Amino acid sequence: MLLEALLQQDFLSPDERRDLQFKRLKATLKRVYEHVPFYRTRLEERQITPDALTSLDELSTLPFTTRDDLLDHYPFGLLSVPREELLRIQASSGTKGRAKIIGYTRHDLSLWSEVSARSLLCMGIQPGDLLVNAYNYGLFTGGLGIHSGAELLGVTVVPTSTGNTRRQVTLLHDLQATALGCTPSYALVIGETMAAMGIEATSLRYGIFGAEPWTEAIRQQIESRLGLSGFDLYGLSEIIGPGVAVECPASRDEARRSGTRFLHVFEDHFYPEIISANGDPLPPGQEGELVLTTLTREGMPLLRYRTGDICSLHTAPCACGRTLMRISQIKGRTDDMLILRGINVYPTEIERVLMSLPELSPYYYIVIERQQSLDSVTVEVELADPDASPDAHQQLQETIGTLLLNASGLHFSVQLHRYGTLPRSEGKTTHIIDKRERGK
Amino acid sequence: MLLEALLQQDFLSPDERRDLQFKRLKATLKRVYEHVPFYRTRLEERQITPDALTSLDELSTLPFTTRDDLLDHYPFGLLSVPREELLRIQASSGTKGRAKIIGYTRHDLSLWSEVSARSLLCMGIQPGDLLVNAYNYGLFTGGLGIHSGAELLGVTVVPTSTGNTRRQVTLLHDLQATALGCTPSYALVIGETMAAMGIEATSLRYGIFGAEPWTEAIRQQIESRLGLSGFDLYGLSEIIGPGVAVECPASRDEARRSGTRFLHVFEDHFYPEIISANGDPLPPGQEGELVLTTLTREGMPLLRYRTGDICSLHTAPCACGRTLMRISQIKGRTDDMLILRGINVYPTEIERVLMSLPELSPYYYIVIERQQSLDSVTVEVELADPDASPDAHQQLQETIGTLLLNASGLHFSVQLHRYGTLPRSEGKTTHIIDKRERGK
Repeated sequence: MLLEALLQQDFLSPDERRDLQFKRLKATLKRVYEHVPFYRTRLEERQITPDALTSLDELSTLPFTTRDDLLDHYPFGLLSVPREELLRIQASSGTKGRAKIIGYTRHDLSLWSEVSARSLLCMGIQPGDLLVNAYNYGLFTGGLGIHSGAELLGVTVVPTSTGNTRRQVTLLHDLQATALGCTPSYALVIGETMAAMGIEATSLRYGIFGAEPWTEAIRQQIESRLGLSGFDLYGLSEIIGPGVAVECPASRDEARRSGTRFLHVFEDHFYPEIISANGDPLPPGQEGELVLTTLTREGMPLLRYRTGDICSLHTAPCACGRTLMRISQIKGRTDDMLILRGINVYPTEIERVLMSLPELSPYYYIVIERQQSLDSVTVEVELADPDASPDAHQQLQETIGTLLLNASGLHFSVQLHRYGTLPRSEGKTTHIIDKRERGK
Repeated sequence: MLLEALLQQDFLSPDERRDLQFKRLKATLKRVYEHVPFYRTRLEERQITPDALTSLDELSTLPFTTRDDLLDHYPFGLLSVPREELLRIQASSGTKGRAKIIGYTRHDLSLWSEVSARSLLCMGIQPGDLLVNAYNYGLFTGGLGIHSGAELLGVTVVPTSTGNTRRQVTLLHDLQATALGCTPSYALVIGETMAAMGIEATSLRYGIFGAEPWTEAIRQQIESRLGLSGFDLYGLSEIIGPGVAVECPASRDEARRSGTRFLHVFEDHFYPEIISANGDPLPPGQEGELVLTTLTREGMPLLRYRTGDICSLHTAPCACGRTLMRISQIKGRTDDMLILRGINVYPTEIERVLMSLPELSPYYYIVIERQQSLDSVTVEVELADPDASPDAHQQLQETIGTLLLNASGLHFSVQLHRYGTLPRSEGKTTHIIDKRERGK
């Protein structure tokens, strides 16, 4: 019964959903107009009143909300309820070290559990599955977000949080875990540790992987090391946390065949748009910045929040039967995009090239330095074979350079390392080491 | 209404409570007899059937459960439900590094939230308070346990977990936190960092301090640094987690006057006994090992669990009006007790002596070594004054040695250190560095 109720929203007819979305958008608009001075001012400037909205299409007349708006109203300036009505505060650090404060009421936490549970269900996870949840618990929304969804669903949750990888492996094995949640880079570390300990977790079936961009090549690596099916999960604390969009098994199969990944958006709660760099709405299929409007958030609703994440929106039906629109896999963030000698490069493109070569391990870093006013980029990557020496692979080094040049139009220096010598990460990984800032 | 329902159980008449306890004990006995082979065997050996129990007093005929029983039945041997019915697994590492696995059903998690919420209420925390919860989230029950109680109560929870102390201080200040939860030793570190950052968190009123033994002197230090009232909270994952026993304001005031600390036990859920080293029940007032029987746990009920914690039981009425029995503050664990040259010493006794001297900071370690087959004990402690040099305090050094000799009958070497030079801890602290094992 609970399962049916949770699933129902995924299969609404498009008309039913649009009606629901419009009703919810109007209620949200009313809420922020009445309770959030920041929005009231912005709406009044545009002479928009909540009642005036006549269709969903007019959403594009509403003002954007940016990360800076959140920072400027730190800590509680964007709340639409008194602080005392919040049950939770999560925070994520902004680019300049300042924290974005996100408030959740009891209603919001229950909504979060719902979309998190629907995400797990969408992957195929069922009540009675056993999840080792190695996402970080705390202010970062990964741990507590997946946790609440799993408990709502009736999954047995082992809240290991990050760290102590040998203990993670022991618990995966001894408790016969059927699901593992963590960042894709930590999944690689767990797989490596598992091999080093001589332990197999043959019970594993589902991997819940998100919080950082990852390629199909990395998926293959993780799946073969851990013997599970890995699913992409997308979310951000400003909107709710994990549970904004998720991959279904049909989409996963499609991605493994075609290399293109799609995730269903829980658009009954989070309305997605794609915009160009100058803020114009883009049609389905075109790549741009993802913008999300919360339709049901109570404590801190956001209108047209510019996520900074780059993807495209797709309306084609999915083989799983869900009527939820899909976004393509997040290619990177607007602020992750490297501009090197005037050329735009996303780290995921570099990863795709590296991971197409079976000689390389999945551990790599992109190091950027400024030399005589020109950016120089070095890719540092490990060999996959533990016995291989970098000295014997000069040819491979040249091949990588050529492939990267073809893919990006940029010259990369390539440094090969022995397997196991580059640093591993337990949480969100950054593959970029940008020394340009410091060098100034 | 919720508040009233939560509080009601604290004020039952003793007769009502005994009736409830007896009814629940019988149900627990029936449950383990029917579903846990380990208990069935133990009960059959003693020819005890669940129906035969005629009064609470017969509890002492039931078998004990020990930490080794948990380890021997790792991971799921003591469950009274199929593993699939668990919603949560917590684990705590045993003395030999093996993990004790504790399973919770949905009912158990709701019970845990209840006793955790009652604990906060008992301290005076109310809906609308803002709690920075710096207990570690994850397999350790401190973080998630306090978290669930606070959310049930309607407190705004900031799940900072441990670490990043400067961020903790910033959030305490910026969010106008009214409550802080963490280990007493981490509270000292937070206070120190706050002073170093020149930040005052004047909104703070309540400190939720547990997970390690701490003295009145440490309470004074913490309270004066953070400007709050600190309350002792007791729990252990085998029984539930935090929320087994808690101090009320009346008890706290009493402790500050008399030096003797008492905590109300939620005995409608956890039945307390005190036993001697050979397992005999001891009357109220006498010090021994605390034994707890879970009266309402569903997933993994425990009969007469030997906690290893040393305290006494008190039936005298409390000024707060709660009819719940109280235990004295945990003096230490049976396995924490140091046996030095044949003399029993609890680390808390040493702390009490050290903290009676205003010249000393609260940071100290007790280092034990074996020299020529004799134990030698050194107390390493910091001076409180940041400008003071150890060289100028030889007299103090001698005073400490004399006080410790008087208190324990043992000769201690004393080493004074400059303020800020001994390591700080973020979670559970051990003050003991025992080099005897390694030296063998």
